[in-house]
Amino acid sequence: MDKVRVGVVGTGRIGKVHIQNLVNRIRNVEVVAVADIMVEQSKEWLEDIGITTMYSDYKKIIEDSSIDAVFVCSSTDTHSQISYEAIKSGKHVFCEKPIDYDIDRIKMVMDAVDEAGVKFQVGFNKRFDRNFKKVFDAVRDGSVGVPHVIKLTSRDPALPPIEYIKVSGGIFVDMMIHDFDMMRYLAGEEVVEVFASGSVLIDPAVGEAKDVDTAIVQLKFESGALGVIDNSRQAVYGYDQRAEVFGSKGCIISENETPNLTSLFNEDAVVREKPLYFFLERFNDAYINEASVFINCVIEDKPVPVGAIDGLKPVLIAIAAQKSLDTGKPVKL
Amino acid sequence: MDKVRVGVVGTGRIGKVHIQNLVNRIRNVEVVAVADIMVEQSKEWLEDIGITTMYSDYKKIIEDSSIDAVFVCSSTDTHSQISYEAIKSGKHVFCEKPIDYDIDRIKMVMDAVDEAGVKFQVGFNKRFDRNFKKVFDAVRDGSVGVPHVIKLTSRDPALPPIEYIKVSGGIFVDMMIHDFDMMRYLAGEEVVEVFASGSVLIDPAVGEAKDVDTAIVQLKFESGALGVIDNSRQAVYGYDQRAEVFGSKGCIISENETPNLTSLFNEDAVVREKPLYFFLERFNDAYINEASVFINCVIEDKPVPVGAIDGLKPVLIAIAAQKSLDTGKPVKL
Amino acid sequence: MDKVRVGVVGTGRIGKVHIQNLVNRIRNVEVVAVADIMVEQSKEWLEDIGITTMYSDYKKIIEDSSIDAVFVCSSTDTHSQISYEAIKSGKHVFCEKPIDYDIDRIKMVMDAVDEAGVKFQVGFNKRFDRNFKKVFDAVRDGSVGVPHVIKLTSRDPALPPIEYIKVSGGIFVDMMIHDFDMMRYLAGEEVVEVFASGSVLIDPAVGEAKDVDTAIVQLKFESGALGVIDNSRQAVYGYDQRAEVFGSKGCIISENETPNLTSLFNEDAVVREKPLYFFLERFNDAYINEASVFINCVIEDKPVPVGAIDGLKPVLIAIAAQKSLDTGKPVKL
Amino acid sequence: MDKVRVGVVGTGRIGKVHIQNLVNRIRNVEVVAVADIMVEQSKEWLEDIGITTMYSDYKKIIEDSSIDAVFVCSSTDTHSQISYEAIKSGKHVFCEKPIDYDIDRIKMVMDAVDEAGVKFQVGFNKRFDRNFKKVFDAVRDGSVGVPHVIKLTSRDPALPPIEYIKVSGGIFVDMMIHDFDMMRYLAGEEVVEVFASGSVLIDPAVGEAKDVDTAIVQLKFESGALGVIDNSRQAVYGYDQRAEVFGSKGCIISENETPNLTSLFNEDAVVREKPLYFFLERFNDAYINEASVFINCVIEDKPVPVGAIDGLKPVLIAIAAQKSLDTGKPVKL
Repeated sequence: MDKVRVGVVGTGRIGKVHIQNLVNRIRNVEVVAVADIMVEQSKEWLEDIGITTMYSDYKKIIEDSSIDAVFVCSSTDTHSQISYEAIKSGKHVFCEKPIDYDIDRIKMVMDAVDEAGVKFQVGFNKRFDRNFKKVFDAVRDGSVGVPHVIKLTSRDPALPPIEYIKVSGGIFVDMMIHDFDMMRYLAGEEVVEVFASGSVLIDPAVGEAKDVDTAIVQLKFESGALGVIDNSRQAVYGYDQRAEVFGSKGCIISENETPNLTSLFNEDAVVREKPLYFFLERFNDAYINEASVFINCVIEDKPVPVGAIDGLKPVLIAIAAQKSLDTGKPVKL
Repeated sequence: MDKVRVGVVGTGRIGKVHIQNLVNRIRNVEVVAVADIMVEQSKEWLEDIGITTMYSDYKKIIEDSSIDAVFVCSSTDTHSQISYEAIKSGKHVFCEKPIDYDIDRIKMVMDAVDEAGVKFQVGFNKRFDRNFKKVFDAVRDGSVGVPHVIKLTSRDPALPPIEYIKVSGGIFVDMMIHDFDMMRYLAGEEVVEVFASGSVLIDPAVGEAKDVDTAIVQLKFESGALGVIDNSRQAVYGYDQRAEVFGSKGCIISENETPNLTSLFNEDAVVREKPLYFFLERFNDAYINEASVFINCVIEDKPVPVGAIDGLKPVLIAIAAQKSLDTGKPVKL
Repeated sequence: MDKVRVGVVGTGRIGKVHIQNLVNRIRNVEVVAVADIMVEQSKEWLEDIGITTMYSDYKKIIEDSSIDAVFVCSSTDTHSQISYEAIKSGKHVFCEKPIDYDIDRIKMVMDAVDEAGVKFQVGFNKRFDRNFKKVFDAVRDGSVGVPHVIKLTSRDPALPPIEYIKVSGGIFVDMMIHDFDMMRYLAGEEVVEVFASGSVLIDPAVGEAKDVDTAIVQLKFESGALGVIDNSRQAVYGYDQRAEVFGSKGCIISENETPNLTSLFNEDAVVREKPLYFFLERFNDAYINEASVFINCVIEDKPVPVGAIDGLKPVLIAIAAQKSLDTGKPVKL
Repeated sequence: MDKVRVGVVGTGRIGKVHIQNLVNRIRNVEVVAVADIMVEQSKEWLEDIGITTMYSDYKKIIEDSSIDAVFVCSSTDTHSQISYEAIKSGKHVFCEKPIDYDIDRIKMVMDAVDEAGVKFQVGFNKRFDRNFKKVFDAVRDGSVGVPHVIKLTSRDPALPPIEYIKVSGGIFVDMMIHDFDMMRYLAGEEVVEVFASGSVLIDPAVGEAKDVDTAIVQLKFESGALGVIDNSRQAVYGYDQRAEVFGSKGCIISENETPNLTSLFNEDAVVREKPLYFFLERFNDAYINEASVFINCVIEDKPVPVGAIDGLKPVLIAIAAQKSLDTGKPVKL
């Protein structure tokens, strides 16, 4: 295959990110059609970028045999169904995370992938950020030796609307799931036990919605290596995304990205820039990289770097973490 | 009182640190006598610094009514007894940490302090490091708002001898006790629950000695704020001592001290200095500060900043952490 | 105008950078034709990116009345001539720096611009780098107060071929010209005096070519503010591009960009990434920004930020610097 | 000699720094007497630190044959005379910089040193700062290869009183002299040419006093290596003392010292500490180091690291720089 013909399902915020990157930034790909139940709302934006085939029903994309691959960027509750249908019709799929919160439905997708022999990549974009990637590389190339302790910090810049929190499935599946994936990615092994604690410290409404806004999860890996993740729904200084891997030969620590690299010395202090505001600013290049890698895997018929199993495992950890928080006890996986 | 007359019990490594600082770096104090069961071994060093009154029996110091204050720097198992006797004889006491591992004996000392009305300060030196102090100040002055998450990292540069590990009482009372104190100091409130995990990742001999060499402890405070400490017995890059307090208005992070502040740009990389090697290098100024504050409290009859209760609480947390590790369950305090 | 129809003259390294950005990264623009005397060599690359109209003679672009704007990316000695012809035919021009080394020919272009009333922008890309831009902003918004001292460091990663050096016009017009522009940009005023010193420290062949490979130029501005630039043809650690503006209220300093923001702590040192290798890596975004601004100025009929006069002034300073080096005396402008 | 018996002449600000360090921080030395024409003013301070022999006439110290070494910390115009007399009476001398502004008087001191065969060290304290020392070491051990460019920045936190400026001898002998010494120290070779520019940008009164408050000096070394120094009498953010040596194998850059190593992330910015306020804060350890090295050289009869010739050379460069500023032309040495 010289060029991958792509259909994109979902033209919301993340859908537009992928469409824009596929059109402008990635080689050997063509966006031939998009679908969204509210596609009319994005008509002008889509035309402006050069896309003319728009459907309100995603099945039109499934049925188009000229389409090689589908980007599933629709609402979370439709990911597994649309992916399943696309796979069944022989298309490669790039599916935004999470595949589903229901383990059986994830397994349904995994089975379909196995049967169809298509590429199926999950959108864990943080793996493709240059800083997290470098931390991964330093573990792989032996620079830190055998990993002993892995620490991840993820803090969002502002509490999402309570309506969002209510249907989010909780902080572990909604937010910390990225960190569970990152833990597996960096450690190169599986988590065997988790212990979660959480509090409502930002807004009591989060507690009324039966969730927490601040959480720490401790993890144990197969080898005995330890991990810890801290999440907050609101860091007033912006999106805080850091990793640290400490091992027998050293320690690698990644910092946040900032709008520029200057220091202002004045009468009060030395002032530097805050971290970039949120994921669209911070992970812009990561979105390009992940889609580019997927397209390349399709063209060269190579295994994708983040497969269906990588979609399943973090959900299992998140469910265990939620159970740990609910019971106040550690939970084995 | 214009000048505090001090007797020092214990002339080992930490005793010498205090003697040197009291003689050369701290005002309004005179070291009038020292005692150590092996004082002969330090005779030359002591004479060189100008100390002529040396005893092998610490009781000589207790009995000397001209001595105002005693620095207890002897072996850990004698701290509570010597402190108790000094207090009973009406002397102020600066006691190296820990007071004791036995709660009843700590309480015995606490009761004696209450009764005698003397000053009693525990040697939690890290509170007096300029970086930890600044983190504390930023919490107190409201710069970080209400604390939500406190993170501490403590890593020693090299595994101590296994013989030491065997009698150390375990990583929680021996090493992490500093971090338990720091947690209370930074949070300004008490710990109500801990969950500990640990592994033997550096040397199997540590496991044979019934200890772990790598540990993470999660803590919950009265307010619901969360904490996490990670300890390692061996960081090949040196003594790693960092703190982070994240709150409603911001986050303060402290870095390690280094031999100098230069960057070398060469063909391979940008190279900066490693952290200072160990506690004598890193906390040199902190030792001066803590003793200086103690002497000042004695002279001006002010409350000491780290009292007997501050010696008790971290031991209680350490015991709870050990119990958590042994049982695999969180432990309430 | 809704969309700017662009012709690009020159399909070498920098031409390709602009073509790629205009095609993929910049809105409201279409590359309708390209010209290069050796266009055949780039045929495959051009077709791949979607360009089909290719000429070996740039006059075909000048003569095409459907073309609104020309990007002049050909060899330096043709910049002024092609720009002049494009302007005369009523086209807007984005001209790579320098316009010319001959003052009369630059003035010929300036006069043509005035007469034709078209947009003419010079490719001083560094102004559009996020770090230099922030330094500029900090001067403009008063953060550093009245500028007293401006310092610029520019070092290339490797000595260019001696054949290149021989025809380069010398380090001042070839390399330091960017810094002369940056000085005017940051200071917001004109240079009145320069003193240059230079040495051959990297390769004697540079001296045989009657040039220097290491140079420092001191400048005085109208207000009495002082500036200093240091240039080296070879920094083994990569492209070093820094600025510092010190003023009555503070000082802003910009750092280099690196491949990522991690630190590796190991037994030897703390290791960070080197600066990005060279201008294509470092100024990738700056090239996009400058072309995007130019296109926007054409569409909205606004003044360009880097006009013909900004092309002239640095050449005058460079000529003065060369004269200073040759005579060993300061030279007034 | 086991212990050096020292007399200190001058008990002003810098004299007290040395006295305090000699008494408390340096081994094998005893301050046996001090002299100052206004010694009464420091009586209480001196007694408190344990010094009882105080003279108003420095000759009492010269005449005391039990004194081995003299620290000359009196006013600048008396340095050469007191040093000379002390040397003539066979005493070792540590002399605060500058020895004198008069070349003949410096040579008189140099001749006396040669004749008497005593140790004579000049107080260029910056050489003993851990950061400048590391830069020096990196040049010496080959880390930066052959030096090509040396850059020094020195900025004071606040303009001194105009009355001070008037008698200071001008910015080059009064302030930049430290940088001229540092240039020789780092380069390991002599300066052959200087070009100075300067302006009055902080306070017109400086101009009325026939001085400048902002200056840049360009230097050329014997090898062709280039240097540049920028000085300002007033940096609102504190004492700015940085060095950079760029060479064939790399570049080393030193940063300023700060009160602590923390970063505060808040809604506005990332805030770090300003540099330490001024030389007493920044160079506290450097003063200890230089005096300690001097005492050690006396005891072990080793050559001092900063001799009389190192006191002469920077004065010669400063005079050349002043001439360059006055004439507007480069000056050869």
